[in-house]
Amino acid sequence: MNIAFIIFDGITLLDLAGIYEPVTRLKYAGYLPDMTWDFCAITPMVEEHGGLQIKPNQVKNDLSVYDAIIIPGGKGTREYMYDETFIKWIQSAGKIPCKISVCTGSLILGAAGFLKEKKATTHFDAYEMLKPFCKEVLYDRIVEDGDCITAGAVTSSIDLGLYLCRKWAGGEADIMIRYKMDYKG
Amino acid sequence: MNIAFIIFDGITLLDLAGIYEPVTRLKYAGYLPDMTWDFCAITPMVEEHGGLQIKPNQVKNDLSVYDAIIIPGGKGTREYMYDETFIKWIQSAGKIPCKISVCTGSLILGAAGFLKEKKATTHFDAYEMLKPFCKEVLYDRIVEDGDCITAGAVTSSIDLGLYLCRKWAGGEADIMIRYKMDYKG
Repeated sequence: MNIAFIIFDGITLLDLAGIYEPVTRLKYAGYLPDMTWDFCAITPMVEEHGGLQIKPNQVKNDLSVYDAIIIPGGKGTREYMYDETFIKWIQSAGKIPCKISVCTGSLILGAAGFLKEKKATTHFDAYEMLKPFCKEVLYDRIVEDGDCITAGAVTSSIDLGLYLCRKWAGGEADIMIRYKMDYKG
Repeated sequence: MNIAFIIFDGITLLDLAGIYEPVTRLKYAGYLPDMTWDFCAITPMVEEHGGLQIKPNQVKNDLSVYDAIIIPGGKGTREYMYDETFIKWIQSAGKIPCKISVCTGSLILGAAGFLKEKKATTHFDAYEMLKPFCKEVLYDRIVEDGDCITAGAVTSSIDLGLYLCRKWAGGEADIMIRYKMDYKG
């Protein structure tokens, strides 16, 4: 399992951290010891919504080599969804088996054409924006349809991370990682 | 309100993001429009536990100028709690009114001497480690005692962030920010 965490200017830090924490614990807790991941961007530095400077370890790299890409949300999605260079780069992940978003990250999956004829979700403030890109917007916390999995607003990121723990490593992984993170959600 | 988010090698990203997200929304949602914050470290770059490279905007700066410092947890705390340079730097915050930690960040508050004669909490795996530094370890999710507020394991970071929203800006801020983040915890 090799994962690309997509980062960009205007990302919401909790959208990233919420899914990143349980998923990467699959490695540290020994469930998927060979798991690897990269932080991928189209710029050499990324500025999170509140000003935190984050440095990706991969820039404009080929996303077709990953088993999964994970796209967090944030204010920045409203610009990047119309950025041809960015969307073309995201489209390099078109054939991989698992394309995942949190919150308004689904607008990026949608703009890349990955949600055509699929059910999906997003932050509840962005339901109308997502509608043109998919078959149906579901008002659920997590929606899986074919090769795409989308989640709702901000903290649903944690729920999606635990959902992936269960999907990729089984129920015990979900339960044990949830316990260690003391998650009550 | 001017806040220092303390970052260091081996930090847990969700410990940081969980409290950072609701607290900084106090500014964006208009509750504390003049709020400012810095990301402070003793090194020019910080490597999060899973490899994410983060660049602080303040390095080895005087922490006595802030209204609050917030120290997340992570594996790195087990080394930094014995690092004289780091602890001396943290001690520059000794006289500020609000010293806050998430998870094993309390080991840093403890090593700096801030928890003497105080009740505090930490990640449940670190209760024994914290005991020598405080009067009593409480097995609660959030503990406030005088000028120190400590929280439990990982996702309690979000609860502490919302607790601070209520403390600093009132119940409406807590409720509205919780709603926008769709937090069920």
